Amino acid sequence: MSTNVLRTTDGWWVVRDERAVRVETEAVTTAELLADRDAVREAAACDGSGTPVADLVALPPVTTPCRVVAQMVNYRSHARDSGFSGDIPPTFFRKASGSVSGPHETIVRPAHVKFLDYEVELGLVMGAPLPVGTVVAERDLPSYVAGLVLTNDVSARDVQLTKTQFYESKSYPTFTPTGPYLALLEPEDFAHLLNLRLRLSVNAVPRQDRTLADMIVHPAQALTLLARFQTLDPGDLLLTGTPGGTALKAPPKPIAKISALLPPAVRWKAFFKAQAKNPLYLHAGDVVTATIATPNGRIDLGEQRNLVTDAR
Amino acid sequence: MSTNVLRTTDGWWVVRDERAVRVETEAVTTAELLADRDAVREAAACDGSGTPVADLVALPPVTTPCRVVAQMVNYRSHARDSGFSGDIPPTFFRKASGSVSGPHETIVRPAHVKFLDYEVELGLVMGAPLPVGTVVAERDLPSYVAGLVLTNDVSARDVQLTKTQFYESKSYPTFTPTGPYLALLEPEDFAHLLNLRLRLSVNAVPRQDRTLADMIVHPAQALTLLARFQTLDPGDLLLTGTPGGTALKAPPKPIAKISALLPPAVRWKAFFKAQAKNPLYLHAGDVVTATIATPNGRIDLGEQRNLVTDAR
Repeated sequence: MSTNVLRTTDGWWVVRDERAVRVETEAVTTAELLADRDAVREAAACDGSGTPVADLVALPPVTTPCRVVAQMVNYRSHARDSGFSGDIPPTFFRKASGSVSGPHETIVRPAHVKFLDYEVELGLVMGAPLPVGTVVAERDLPSYVAGLVLTNDVSARDVQLTKTQFYESKSYPTFTPTGPYLALLEPEDFAHLLNLRLRLSVNAVPRQDRTLADMIVHPAQALTLLARFQTLDPGDLLLTGTPGGTALKAPPKPIAKISALLPPAVRWKAFFKAQAKNPLYLHAGDVVTATIATPNGRIDLGEQRNLVTDAR
Repeated sequence: MSTNVLRTTDGWWVVRDERAVRVETEAVTTAELLADRDAVREAAACDGSGTPVADLVALPPVTTPCRVVAQMVNYRSHARDSGFSGDIPPTFFRKASGSVSGPHETIVRPAHVKFLDYEVELGLVMGAPLPVGTVVAERDLPSYVAGLVLTNDVSARDVQLTKTQFYESKSYPTFTPTGPYLALLEPEDFAHLLNLRLRLSVNAVPRQDRTLADMIVHPAQALTLLARFQTLDPGDLLLTGTPGGTALKAPPKPIAKISALLPPAVRWKAFFKAQAKNPLYLHAGDVVTATIATPNGRIDLGEQRNLVTDAR
């Protein structure tokens, strides 16, 4: 059974049935909390009534700086949205950890960004070092992954597509709402990963709704591929990709083929002119809600609720 | 006048005229050394004869983990090599700092990499925090940049081009030879940056040779653009792009336009079949040498010399 941990300015809490029990720990960073699992277990075993969760302001349960790595195109439904066909080479990119924000914090659109998009994603929080060259077998996953978090990989599509490298477009402050809960898993919880259902709505209208059954490269294989070149440490975060339903949709194949012949500046001008009529991008005043949970509630990462505003 | 600092397993040294004087400091990381500039100044002022530099084994003067950010296509000559025409949006990507290796360390080609390339680059080492939103005016550059290092942004072209995101292809261990010297600059040294000449040879045959006059986005503007989304801290490293002369050359425009119509897998197969005849890629046994210096020697980042080997 997983244990939900929440962070506030006062420290760390274990949450059960809408009540929060303080974790007696000196831990400041997520890595330090993961090294003090006994304190978490004690709080989880506590029969005291605790504090109503509703009275607490949740910070992201992943502290920064840390490494934030993300998988590109890792759900079949998102691959279709993005115009991919055939095999997609498993690909990673980095997000600045300064983009990590709270689960109920406002998402701020930078003034130069016109096409702001959302991507609900399951985040893996590392619990042990992953040296370069590590091969992570499915059964070893619990040795490396301490827990899960709900994340939103907010994306400035105009920046992302024109620059080709995803790094900037996904790294602005508030572009990675994270939490509310860090769900610390027991080894037996990992058998339930594929039942996790990711859902995201904008102004209460559903946009994304898929389970991990749609995922292309699963966590153990993803860590093995990442460890070809990247070391990870406890508290580091891997975002595992988003399912279909983002605002961005690739143009139909014939149009894509014709536009490939145009100079990039002309091609993007035409593409974004068409996208300007797409009503699905985020605007100031929109409210994005997201959840990730198994149907039986065995793993439940809580709910994000983020208002969108324009940078002042 | 700049001060050249070298790092060994024993600590830090100031180098002048082929002699090294030990810096009396407790500093372990580059950030700690930069916070102890008095100790560096004392060593620099020391009249003692010191140790012959030739007797020391230079480690990378940038300690890790740290942030390693790089600029994509930032020399006009490299833009031509890469098939870019028109305006290139200034773009950044991340390298894993685990790729940082010594200036005379072997570059290891991973077994799955067929097209191994080199990119001599000027590295800026941060001396002060760069918060998001910072605007760095040309005259303020000395407040943010503590010094310069010679780097090689080694690139697995087959990984880079097929995955589109540059992160993995440039992040394998030994893919960022760095050093030998961290040249700590005085404010008046910054006026000489544009005279820096980057040179790289393979087996003593010159491949790259340009000055910073060919650079597109200069350091102060690059930091301003990076600070739109990324915080930097002392000891972090920004690679500022490579000039023309890499092994990789884009295909001629008409061929590129036709190949844009092919499915990616077919296109890359054809491209790499052609590249297999290109003799300029690195192979086991090759020796890569690189230097960056001003003609008058006011700034001289030393020489790298790296043997290439295959992973065992």
